[in-house]
Amino acid sequence: MKVTPYEVKGKIDYEKLITKFGVKRLTPKLKRKLGDHHLLRRNIFFAHRDLEKLTDNFFLYTGCGPSGNIHLGHYIVWEFTKWLQDQFGCDVYFQFTDDEKFLYKNMSYDDIQNWTKENMLDVAAVGFNPKKTFFIVNTKHANLMYPEAIKVAKKLTLSTVKSAFGFTNETNIGSYFYTAMQTVPTFLPNILDGGKRQCLIPYAIDQDPHFRLTRDIVPKLGHQKPLSIQCKFLPALQGDGKLSSSVGNAIYLTDSPSQVKKKINKYAFSGGRDTVKEHREKGGNPDIDTSFQWLRYFEASDKVLDDIELKYKSGEMLSGELKLILVNKINSILAEHQKRREKVVLNQFML
Amino acid sequence: MKVTPYEVKGKIDYEKLITKFGVKRLTPKLKRKLGDHHLLRRNIFFAHRDLEKLTDNFFLYTGCGPSGNIHLGHYIVWEFTKWLQDQFGCDVYFQFTDDEKFLYKNMSYDDIQNWTKENMLDVAAVGFNPKKTFFIVNTKHANLMYPEAIKVAKKLTLSTVKSAFGFTNETNIGSYFYTAMQTVPTFLPNILDGGKRQCLIPYAIDQDPHFRLTRDIVPKLGHQKPLSIQCKFLPALQGDGKLSSSVGNAIYLTDSPSQVKKKINKYAFSGGRDTVKEHREKGGNPDIDTSFQWLRYFEASDKVLDDIELKYKSGEMLSGELKLILVNKINSILAEHQKRREKVVLNQFML
Repeated sequence: MKVTPYEVKGKIDYEKLITKFGVKRLTPKLKRKLGDHHLLRRNIFFAHRDLEKLTDNFFLYTGCGPSGNIHLGHYIVWEFTKWLQDQFGCDVYFQFTDDEKFLYKNMSYDDIQNWTKENMLDVAAVGFNPKKTFFIVNTKHANLMYPEAIKVAKKLTLSTVKSAFGFTNETNIGSYFYTAMQTVPTFLPNILDGGKRQCLIPYAIDQDPHFRLTRDIVPKLGHQKPLSIQCKFLPALQGDGKLSSSVGNAIYLTDSPSQVKKKINKYAFSGGRDTVKEHREKGGNPDIDTSFQWLRYFEASDKVLDDIELKYKSGEMLSGELKLILVNKINSILAEHQKRREKVVLNQFML
Repeated sequence: MKVTPYEVKGKIDYEKLITKFGVKRLTPKLKRKLGDHHLLRRNIFFAHRDLEKLTDNFFLYTGCGPSGNIHLGHYIVWEFTKWLQDQFGCDVYFQFTDDEKFLYKNMSYDDIQNWTKENMLDVAAVGFNPKKTFFIVNTKHANLMYPEAIKVAKKLTLSTVKSAFGFTNETNIGSYFYTAMQTVPTFLPNILDGGKRQCLIPYAIDQDPHFRLTRDIVPKLGHQKPLSIQCKFLPALQGDGKLSSSVGNAIYLTDSPSQVKKKINKYAFSGGRDTVKEHREKGGNPDIDTSFQWLRYFEASDKVLDDIELKYKSGEMLSGELKLILVNKINSILAEHQKRREKVVLNQFML
């Protein structure tokens, strides 16, 4: 198992990650502090740092690396972040790490810039409050970001960064520097307005190496350590590893209903039996069925989900029927999303 | 002998540096191409890259690392750059590497910013044409600089930078990244105005590692390799190594006449004899006399300099008299400089 922002491979053992990364399990009490959300109830957001210290004076910070279409794995974190914004009425600082993606990927600067614009539309379309949401594009806000990033960078030795991310002597110097840029939004809002707000970062667990460094460094600069809450990856449709565009069967926020249907029917690993007869007799296995697992991420109602589980396990519901439920659920989410995306006025969101 | 932007030590052998760094000697023909300046005549600007390719369509680029008062060693390069601007009527892009100094020195960000402002006054006071001179402050122009710097950084591996500058595993990641920022002004003016001008960089030879990397990288980004011209260091008053603020006996552009007199009288290594009698008989040795060596940098008239040399060698001129000539020369340069400094309007110079 390898989990870094730049590579996720092997079977993910989240219990091991809790120990390895030094995060803590989310307790029922801490979950109640945030409110009632199916991603909390189902332990998809499963870990945290310092959440017990959360006051009512905080902002949220999360981000996106723009190098392609946004898939549903990204959406999960953002939808949850938007929900937190609604719950607490707080500001969201959303960082677009165009520098990171340019430095790390074999893509042109212009392509990255195009994806940045496309991705901004998708983020805005999640439904963030434009009055309380501030997009930071690293290359566009460099006048604010770079002076703070060098203060972070001064505290980070080469060997620290090398081991945190598994970089080599052949890694470019921009990739080494970049983690300093990802630290800055944890304290930038306080620099901009002179406030003392806490920073709470929701993120998928692979981003943890960045924020472990962040928490080491920012107190040395006189800032508070950010609080954080980590989620599990949305599994890939075929059932193994993290959903990722590079695997080729991700579902994108811009996919059409027929594309969604085709991908789910083709790739979603089934927990059903080999024949209808056998399935009716013995029932399906939801634990290994990606369609069911995805519904845990996307179907908010426990009642509906429990009902599906029961019927699938008993053999009353066939694999194809389960897939159709997922197809319809995703397509209804995407239809709403795409409608909102049409109406986005981007400059309302810029820092 | 070690010559990098971050450390100069040992006795400097410029002939060896020509081979080691792969620069070429300035030929009489190339010198004539630039014009008649005593720093060329006396081989203080002594080496170059690609100067034979210089057309009449170029801009000058040089810079300053703001971490203290400006000493006369810096002044030499700038005064020569100003003279080139006058000769050719070309633009000068002047970079203040406040990020570099912050990252490399044990100084606070605010202190570096104060020095940046002070140093800008000194640079402007050299007499650059405000209409054709553009100050770049790395942290203040990061919106222009950082997006280009990451394009450079993407082409530079860790191991390349590590060996070019002699960095270690304990060096901070900002220092590693920084060289990308020093490359950008070699092509930024063309990006800003869509032009195709050549870039000519006058610099003291210790900056060569930056620009060797620059010349490797920028063609890969579709830009022309910069041309360059290198000078020797102004020797330290006590006679060994490079003049440097860290040695403690540098003469600053802001020094008062009495400070200049005190420093030269106290520190300038003399080529005179032990007694007046012996000096009158055998004469002084100008080759090892720092006051005479400094006059080679600051006294533009060959006639005056030859006359001093003759009299000093013959014993007619005593060490104290030679020192006084240097004191007066420096003080007259500084008096003019300080007068101009009072009148500088900085924002006329900002990019």
